[in-house]
Amino acid sequence: MKITLLTVGKTTSKEMKSLIDDYVQRIGHFVNFDLKYLPNQKHTKNLSEKEVKTAEGLQILDALSKYQIAVLLDDRGSPMRSMDFAGSIQKHFNSGQKSICYIIGGAYGFSEAVYQAVPKQLSLSKMTLSHQMVRLLFVEQLYRGLAIINHLPYHHE
Amino acid sequence: MKITLLTVGKTTSKEMKSLIDDYVQRIGHFVNFDLKYLPNQKHTKNLSEKEVKTAEGLQILDALSKYQIAVLLDDRGSPMRSMDFAGSIQKHFNSGQKSICYIIGGAYGFSEAVYQAVPKQLSLSKMTLSHQMVRLLFVEQLYRGLAIINHLPYHHE
Repeated sequence: MKITLLTVGKTTSKEMKSLIDDYVQRIGHFVNFDLKYLPNQKHTKNLSEKEVKTAEGLQILDALSKYQIAVLLDDRGSPMRSMDFAGSIQKHFNSGQKSICYIIGGAYGFSEAVYQAVPKQLSLSKMTLSHQMVRLLFVEQLYRGLAIINHLPYHHE
Repeated sequence: MKITLLTVGKTTSKEMKSLIDDYVQRIGHFVNFDLKYLPNQKHTKNLSEKEVKTAEGLQILDALSKYQIAVLLDDRGSPMRSMDFAGSIQKHFNSGQKSICYIIGGAYGFSEAVYQAVPKQLSLSKMTLSHQMVRLLFVEQLYRGLAIINHLPYHHE
Protein backbone atom coordinates (compact mmCIF):
# COMPACT_ATOMS: atom_id res chain seq x y z
CA MET A 1 0.00 0.00 0.00
CA LYS A 2 1.18 3.47 -0.87
CA ILE A 3 0.67 6.26 1.70
CA THR A 4 0.60 9.91 0.57
CA LEU A 5 0.48 13.06 2.67
CA LEU A 6 -1.03 15.87 0.62
CA THR A 7 -0.45 19.42 1.87
CA VAL A 8 -1.27 22.90 0.64
CA GLY A 9 1.71 25.24 0.28
CA LYS A 10 5.41 24.54 0.74
CA THR A 11 6.95 24.11 4.18
CA THR A 12 8.49 27.53 4.66
CA SER A 13 10.88 26.99 7.57
CA LYS A 14 14.04 25.10 6.68
CA GLU A 15 14.29 23.71 10.23
CA MET A 16 10.72 22.37 10.01
CA LYS A 17 11.46 20.92 6.58
CA SER A 18 14.55 19.17 7.93
CA LEU A 19 12.64 17.60 10.86
CA ILE A 20 9.84 16.48 8.51
CA ASP A 21 12.33 15.06 5.98
CA ASP A 22 13.96 13.01 8.74
CA TYR A 23 10.63 11.29 9.56
CA VAL A 24 9.79 10.91 5.84
CA GLN A 25 13.05 9.01 5.42
CA ARG A 26 12.37 6.80 8.46
CA ILE A 27 8.79 6.11 7.26
CA GLY A 28 10.27 5.07 3.90
CA HIS A 29 11.93 2.08 5.59
CA PHE A 30 8.47 0.61 6.25
CA VAL A 31 6.18 1.77 3.42
CA ASN A 32 6.07 3.49 0.08
CA PHE A 33 5.46 7.06 1.29
CA ASP A 34 5.19 10.32 -0.57
CA LEU A 35 4.78 13.91 0.65
CA LYS A 36 3.05 16.10 -1.95
CA TYR A 37 2.58 19.85 -2.01
CA LEU A 38 -0.26 21.66 -3.80
CA PRO A 39 0.35 25.35 -4.55
CA ASN A 40 -1.38 27.62 -2.02
CA GLN A 41 -3.64 30.46 -3.13
CA LYS A 42 -2.12 33.79 -2.17
CA HIS A 43 -4.34 35.74 0.19
CA THR A 44 -2.79 38.91 -1.23
CA LYS A 45 -4.54 39.02 -4.59
CA ASN A 46 -7.77 40.39 -3.17
CA LEU A 47 -9.19 36.97 -2.34
CA SER A 48 -11.22 36.60 0.82
CA GLU A 49 -10.50 33.79 3.30
CA LYS A 50 -13.48 31.89 1.90
CA GLU A 51 -12.32 32.33 -1.72
CA VAL A 52 -8.85 31.02 -0.77
CA LYS A 53 -10.43 27.93 0.83
CA THR A 54 -12.74 27.36 -2.15
CA ALA A 55 -9.92 27.59 -4.69
CA GLU A 56 -7.64 25.33 -2.61
CA GLY A 57 -10.57 22.92 -2.11
CA LEU A 58 -10.99 22.46 -5.87
CA GLN A 59 -7.32 21.55 -6.20
CA ILE A 60 -7.54 19.12 -3.29
CA LEU A 61 -10.59 17.35 -4.70
CA ASP A 62 -8.92 17.09 -8.10
CA ALA A 63 -5.73 15.62 -6.58
CA LEU A 64 -7.71 13.17 -4.39
CA SER A 65 -9.36 11.42 -7.32
CA LYS A 66 -6.17 9.33 -7.70
CA TYR A 67 -6.42 7.67 -4.26
CA GLN A 68 -8.66 4.87 -2.99
CA ILE A 69 -8.90 6.06 0.62
CA ALA A 70 -8.80 9.71 1.72
CA VAL A 71 -8.59 11.05 5.28
CA LEU A 72 -8.70 14.74 6.27
CA LEU A 73 -6.45 15.81 9.13
CA ASP A 74 -8.67 18.34 10.83
CA ASP A 75 -9.76 19.35 14.31
CA ARG A 76 -13.39 18.57 13.34
CA GLY A 77 -12.36 14.91 13.11
CA SER A 78 -12.21 12.22 15.78
CA PRO A 79 -9.23 12.26 18.13
CA MET A 80 -7.34 8.96 18.33
CA ARG A 81 -4.74 7.45 20.64
CA SER A 82 -1.45 6.52 18.93
CA MET A 83 -2.19 2.80 19.43
CA ASP A 84 -5.58 3.21 17.74
CA PHE A 85 -4.03 5.19 14.88
CA ALA A 86 -1.54 2.32 14.41
CA GLY A 87 -4.52 -0.05 14.40
CA SER A 88 -6.25 2.01 11.71
CA ILE A 89 -3.12 1.89 9.50
CA GLN A 90 -2.93 -1.89 9.97
CA LYS A 91 -6.60 -2.13 8.99
CA HIS A 92 -5.93 -0.14 5.81
CA PHE A 93 -2.99 -2.49 5.03
CA ASN A 94 -5.32 -5.47 5.47
CA SER A 95 -8.10 -3.93 3.38
CA GLY A 96 -6.46 -4.76 0.06
CA GLN A 97 -6.78 -1.11 -1.04
CA LYS A 98 -3.75 0.17 -2.94
CA SER A 99 -3.46 3.79 -1.82
CA ILE A 100 -4.36 6.07 1.03
CA CYS A 101 -4.03 9.84 1.09
CA TYR A 102 -4.01 11.96 4.26
CA ILE A 103 -4.69 15.65 3.60
CA ILE A 104 -3.68 18.77 5.54
CA GLY A 105 -5.48 21.98 4.51
CA GLY A 106 -4.01 25.43 3.91
CA ALA A 107 -3.70 28.30 6.38
CA TYR A 108 -7.51 28.72 6.62
CA GLY A 109 -8.44 25.04 6.60
CA PHE A 110 -10.78 23.17 4.26
CA SER A 111 -13.74 24.38 2.20
CA GLU A 112 -17.19 22.91 2.93
CA ALA A 113 -16.99 21.05 -0.40
CA VAL A 114 -13.92 19.15 0.87
CA TYR A 115 -15.62 18.30 4.19
CA GLN A 116 -18.64 17.00 2.24
CA ALA A 117 -16.55 14.91 -0.15
CA VAL A 118 -14.24 13.34 2.46
CA PRO A 119 -16.16 11.92 5.42
CA LYS A 120 -13.10 10.27 7.05
CA GLN A 121 -11.60 12.90 9.34
CA LEU A 122 -8.86 12.49 11.95
CA SER A 123 -7.99 15.06 14.62
CA LEU A 124 -4.37 15.14 15.85
CA SER A 125 -5.27 17.62 18.58
CA LYS A 126 -8.30 19.47 19.90
CA MET A 127 -6.09 22.54 19.74
CA THR A 128 -5.71 24.49 16.53
CA LEU A 129 -2.20 23.86 15.23
CA SER A 130 -0.47 25.79 12.45
CA HIS A 131 -0.81 23.86 9.18
CA GLN A 132 2.99 23.67 9.08
CA MET A 133 3.11 22.09 12.55
CA VAL A 134 0.43 19.55 11.63
CA ARG A 135 2.81 18.17 8.98
CA LEU A 136 5.52 17.45 11.53
CA LEU A 137 3.03 16.00 14.01
CA PHE A 138 1.51 13.76 11.38
CA VAL A 139 4.79 12.30 10.08
CA GLU A 140 5.87 11.65 13.68
CA GLN A 141 2.59 9.83 14.39
CA LEU A 142 2.79 7.88 11.14
CA TYR A 143 6.34 6.81 12.03
CA ARG A 144 5.17 5.96 15.57
CA GLY A 145 2.26 3.93 14.16
CA LEU A 146 4.56 2.00 11.85
CA ALA A 147 7.02 1.44 14.71
CA ILE A 148 4.13 0.02 16.81
CA ILE A 149 3.01 -2.27 13.95
CA ASN A 150 6.61 -3.44 13.45
CA HIS A 151 7.31 -3.87 17.18
CA LEU A 152 10.14 -1.32 17.28
CA PRO A 153 10.96 0.11 20.75
CA TYR A 154 9.98 3.70 19.82
CA HIS A 155 6.61 3.96 21.52
CA HIS A 156 6.17 3.70 25.31
CA GLU A 157 2.62 3.19 26.61
CA MET B 1 2.93 36.95 36.02
CA LYS B 2 5.93 34.85 35.14
CA ILE B 3 5.39 31.71 33.02
CA THR B 4 7.93 28.88 33.11
CA LEU B 5 8.11 25.75 31.00
CA LEU B 6 10.02 23.06 32.87
CA THR B 7 11.34 20.13 30.83
CA VAL B 8 13.46 17.07 31.51
CA GLY B 9 16.54 16.71 29.32
CA LYS B 10 17.98 19.08 26.73
CA THR B 11 16.38 19.53 23.31
CA THR B 12 18.70 17.36 21.23
CA SER B 13 17.87 18.40 17.66
CA LYS B 14 19.28 21.79 16.68
CA GLU B 15 16.40 22.32 14.22
CA MET B 16 13.84 21.66 16.97
CA LYS B 17 15.75 23.98 19.30
CA SER B 18 15.74 26.72 16.69
CA LEU B 19 11.95 26.42 16.13
CA ILE B 20 11.33 26.44 19.89
CA ASP B 21 13.65 29.44 20.42
CA ASP B 22 11.71 31.37 17.78
CA TYR B 23 8.44 30.93 19.73
CA VAL B 24 10.19 31.62 23.05
CA GLN B 25 11.34 34.96 21.66
CA ARG B 26 7.85 35.79 20.36
CA ILE B 27 6.26 34.82 23.71
CA GLY B 28 8.76 37.14 25.42
CA HIS B 29 7.07 40.11 23.74
CA PHE B 30 3.96 39.43 25.82
CA VAL B 31 5.08 37.91 29.12
CA ASN B 32 8.06 37.12 31.28
CA PHE B 33 8.75 33.58 30.03
CA ASP B 34 11.48 31.11 30.86
CA LEU B 35 12.28 27.65 29.47
CA LYS B 36 14.11 25.49 32.03
CA TYR B 37 15.80 22.14 31.60
CA LEU B 38 16.29 19.56 34.35
CA PRO B 39 18.99 16.95 33.72
CA ASN B 40 17.53 13.64 32.54
CA GLN B 41 18.42 10.34 34.18
CA LYS B 42 20.35 8.17 31.79
CA HIS B 43 18.55 4.91 31.09
CA THR B 44 21.94 3.32 30.47
CA LYS B 45 23.20 3.06 34.06
CA ASN B 46 21.14 -0.03 34.80
CA LEU B 47 18.09 1.95 35.84
CA SER B 48 14.69 0.55 34.93
CA GLU B 49 12.06 2.74 33.24
CA LYS B 50 10.33 3.10 36.60
CA GLU B 51 13.54 4.09 38.40
CA VAL B 52 14.23 6.73 35.73
CA LYS B 53 10.71 8.16 36.25
CA THR B 54 11.05 8.10 40.05
CA ALA B 55 14.43 9.88 40.01
CA GLU B 56 13.21 12.49 37.51
CA GLY B 57 9.99 12.89 39.55
CA LEU B 58 11.97 13.85 42.66
CA GLN B 59 13.81 16.54 40.72
CA ILE B 60 10.55 17.85 39.27
CA LEU B 61 8.85 18.07 42.67
CA ASP B 62 11.86 19.86 44.11
CA ALA B 63 11.92 22.39 41.23
CA LEU B 64 8.14 22.96 41.45
CA SER B 65 8.23 24.20 45.04
CA LYS B 66 9.21 27.65 43.68
CA TYR B 67 5.99 28.18 41.69
CA GLN B 68 2.48 29.12 42.82
CA ILE B 69 0.59 27.24 40.06
CA ALA B 70 1.79 24.02 38.42
CA VAL B 71 0.29 22.26 35.39
CA LEU B 72 1.45 18.92 33.98
CA LEU B 73 1.41 18.56 30.19
CA ASP B 74 0.33 14.96 29.85
CA ASP B 75 -2.04 12.84 27.81
CA ARG B 76 -3.84 11.80 31.04
CA GLY B 77 -4.98 15.45 31.33
CA SER B 78 -8.00 17.22 29.85
CA PRO B 79 -7.82 18.21 26.20
CA MET B 80 -8.57 21.87 25.50
CA ARG B 81 -9.37 23.95 22.46
CA SER B 82 -6.88 26.78 21.78
CA MET B 83 -9.51 29.41 22.67
CA ASP B 84 -10.12 27.69 26.02
CA PHE B 85 -6.38 27.44 26.68
CA ALA B 86 -6.13 31.20 26.01
CA GLY B 87 -9.01 31.66 28.47
CA SER B 88 -7.19 29.62 31.11
CA ILE B 89 -4.06 31.78 30.71
CA GLN B 90 -6.17 34.93 31.06
CA LYS B 91 -7.73 33.47 34.21
CA HIS B 92 -4.26 32.81 35.67
CA PHE B 93 -3.30 36.43 34.84
CA ASN B 94 -6.41 37.65 36.67
CA SER B 95 -5.84 35.38 39.68
CA GLY B 96 -3.19 37.61 41.21
CA GLN B 97 -0.78 34.65 41.45
CA LYS B 98 2.81 35.52 40.59
CA SER B 99 4.09 32.42 38.82
CA ILE B 100 2.89 29.45 36.82
CA CYS B 101 4.95 26.47 35.74
CA TYR B 102 3.98 24.04 32.98
CA ILE B 103 5.91 20.75 33.12
CA ILE B 104 6.81 18.25 30.38
CA GLY B 105 8.10 14.89 31.61
CA GLY B 106 11.06 12.89 30.36
CA ALA B 107 11.09 10.11 27.74
CA TYR B 108 9.01 7.77 29.97
CA GLY B 109 6.63 10.37 31.36
CA PHE B 110 5.87 11.24 35.00
CA SER B 111 6.16 9.16 38.16
CA GLU B 112 3.00 8.48 40.17
CA ALA B 113 4.32 10.83 42.89
CA VAL B 114 4.25 13.71 40.37
CA TYR B 115 0.71 12.85 39.23
CA GLN B 116 -0.40 12.80 42.87
CA ALA B 117 1.28 16.12 43.71
CA VAL B 118 0.10 18.06 40.65
CA PRO B 119 -3.63 17.64 40.04
CA LYS B 120 -3.80 20.24 37.22
CA GLN B 121 -3.11 18.32 33.99
CA LEU B 122 -3.48 19.51 30.41
CA SER B 123 -3.41 17.25 27.35
CA LEU B 124 -2.13 18.77 24.09
CA SER B 125 -3.15 15.66 22.14
CA LYS B 126 -4.77 12.30 22.75
CA MET B 127 -1.86 10.90 20.79
CA THR B 128 1.44 10.14 22.47
CA LEU B 129 3.93 12.74 21.27
CA SER B 130 7.69 12.60 21.76
CA HIS B 131 8.65 14.71 24.78
CA GLN B 132 10.75 16.84 22.42
CA MET B 133 7.76 17.47 20.13
CA VAL B 134 5.55 18.43 23.09
CA ARG B 135 7.92 21.34 23.77
CA LEU B 136 7.42 22.78 20.30
CA LEU B 137 3.67 22.21 20.41
CA PHE B 138 3.39 23.87 23.81
CA VAL B 139 5.33 27.02 22.94
CA GLU B 140 3.26 27.34 19.75
CA GLN B 141 0.02 27.03 21.76
CA LEU B 142 1.26 29.46 24.40
CA TYR B 143 2.14 31.98 21.68
CA ARG B 144 -1.25 31.34 20.04
CA GLY B 145 -3.01 31.84 23.38
CA LEU B 146 -1.18 35.13 24.00
CA ALA B 147 -1.96 36.25 20.42
CA ILE B 148 -5.67 35.51 21.07
CA ILE B 149 -5.62 37.44 24.37
CA ASN B 150 -3.85 40.38 22.64
CA HIS B 151 -6.10 40.29 19.54
CA LEU B 152 -3.28 39.58 17.08
CA PRO B 153 -4.35 38.09 13.73
CA TYR B 154 -2.47 34.79 14.27
CA HIS B 155 -5.35 32.48 15.18
CA HIS B 156 -8.19 31.67 12.74
CA GLU B 157 -11.29 30.00 14.22
